[in-house]
Amino acid sequence: MAHHFAIGIDLGGTTVKTALVDTNGNIFSQVKLPTLADQNPEAVIGQIKKSIDEILLISKGKSISGVGIAVPGLVENPGGILKNPANFKGWDIIALGDELEKMFGMKTVVDNDANVAALAEAKFGSGKDHPDFLFVIWGTGVGGGIILDGNIYRGPHGGAGEIGHISIDHKGLKCNCGTIGCVEAYIGQKYLSNRTIEKLQVNSDSKIVELVGGDLSKIEPIFISKAAEAGDQLAKEILVEAGTLLGVMLGGVMNTLDFRVTIIGGGVSAVGDFVYDAVRASTVAHVQKPLKSGIKILRAQLGNDAGMLGAAGMVL
Amino acid sequence: MAHHFAIGIDLGGTTVKTALVDTNGNIFSQVKLPTLADQNPEAVIGQIKKSIDEILLISKGKSISGVGIAVPGLVENPGGILKNPANFKGWDIIALGDELEKMFGMKTVVDNDANVAALAEAKFGSGKDHPDFLFVIWGTGVGGGIILDGNIYRGPHGGAGEIGHISIDHKGLKCNCGTIGCVEAYIGQKYLSNRTIEKLQVNSDSKIVELVGGDLSKIEPIFISKAAEAGDQLAKEILVEAGTLLGVMLGGVMNTLDFRVTIIGGGVSAVGDFVYDAVRASTVAHVQKPLKSGIKILRAQLGNDAGMLGAAGMVL
Repeated sequence: MAHHFAIGIDLGGTTVKTALVDTNGNIFSQVKLPTLADQNPEAVIGQIKKSIDEILLISKGKSISGVGIAVPGLVENPGGILKNPANFKGWDIIALGDELEKMFGMKTVVDNDANVAALAEAKFGSGKDHPDFLFVIWGTGVGGGIILDGNIYRGPHGGAGEIGHISIDHKGLKCNCGTIGCVEAYIGQKYLSNRTIEKLQVNSDSKIVELVGGDLSKIEPIFISKAAEAGDQLAKEILVEAGTLLGVMLGGVMNTLDFRVTIIGGGVSAVGDFVYDAVRASTVAHVQKPLKSGIKILRAQLGNDAGMLGAAGMVL
Repeated sequence: MAHHFAIGIDLGGTTVKTALVDTNGNIFSQVKLPTLADQNPEAVIGQIKKSIDEILLISKGKSISGVGIAVPGLVENPGGILKNPANFKGWDIIALGDELEKMFGMKTVVDNDANVAALAEAKFGSGKDHPDFLFVIWGTGVGGGIILDGNIYRGPHGGAGEIGHISIDHKGLKCNCGTIGCVEAYIGQKYLSNRTIEKLQVNSDSKIVELVGGDLSKIEPIFISKAAEAGDQLAKEILVEAGTLLGVMLGGVMNTLDFRVTIIGGGVSAVGDFVYDAVRASTVAHVQKPLKSGIKILRAQLGNDAGMLGAAGMVL
């Protein structure tokens, strides 16, 4: 096979990150521009166009298979229609894929950022040896993507993988989405920080307080994780509890799909290995017998590059 | 297309039911034999062989596409390998599909009874207009099958659709399977009957007691349903609660797969429409916004013929 390249774009609320990527997932050149999401759709599309132009200029003579774009929000295909991305001013429903395809005459594929990050791990990261896995984004919220036989499973309407809003307690906490007991309402970054603050108000004897210089509003999972790794009991308890609750949900998804593998990315995924151990133990406890011995809970490998790499991966 | 036929076999623990089925799901002739599961695998395979022989005799001159078999227990394909079906004496691991294919020189497909019943609904029943749905068997236990784009989704290891053991309460009831909070531990027929008995021991003012002639050990969902339809408050509460809990699980599965449709079969599925209303309301409450308006909870149409029809459907 000839050495092929693709342009991978990670369209975030703040920054558009664009890269020239080869079939092995190597990044050759990279362009970062502000998204201008607070202006209007024309401004945003202008920034995307400018990014592609710059990459094309640098990559003269190289064979480029097309453009992939990871976007925040719901996407409908064909057409690469992006609907109401959060915090994109004036953006209603725009066929971003079609528009760019006309502009550059190159195959253009648009998908939701969680799906794209999942594909990145499948092609270039922790999922390389696993044709079927659930990708979990554990960050501010809890999202996900499903990789089925090496490809993104989008579902009949393009919205598959919304695993953050699976209820793990039908009489539990109320989630921001309105549902009772969503796993996001237990382990999403904000909820996790809030519950830590609550616990510290009862018992403030924890290294976490020291790590945030006494300002509890600064608590984030990374500080809880650092405190835990320094031996802090409260911090350990909080994260092990979160991992255990994540495993309750994962067990249900593994049972449903007959999957064995979960890959965890997102901001919170940087927590220590002991949290992964808790996730694994809980998942094993919540799957049926034939699945138990095969359960794997892996850490995502690609970090902030996942969007660009997976986006390029869609057209490579 | 020529008018084709297939042989559909429903291998139960007690009876082998075999039918000649056409492409429209019409049953032409039918044979019922005892399974002889309490003897040995040779006896069981002998009964299957005898059933096929009888059907072939009746159907002389008809073009038969092959044999499909619905079996209880885990199946591995290719080969149609049936592993340790419950209550089949001496049956360890047998490549039932391969064996019959050699015997009759006809294409033979074997699959788990839940998957086969799901396919029957997809081809000939409530799922005809729905390419993607979850099929739930609500009976002694709670099982399921996933229909993806009109076909059975088996998962990488053939065990997909184990939705009865999704936890809906991580600190809830212990299920027979060992996991905490499985939906089966709340709504499976046995659990449902047991909880009804517990409630009646506290307050026996219910039509259910009358319907079972005072013998609480005879309580089954059909009596609870009858009592509810006659206006009995306790019976209504029990079934609406069960339907609501089923919807918690369904919401999670719909979110994960981006599905809108669930079809309910199995012994308990004969309950009144008000239970379906409760399942629907709860499912809608537990899915993300874009899914809410599309949620459909349907009753299976094919009853006891689902096994034979779906089995034939696998080779038609």
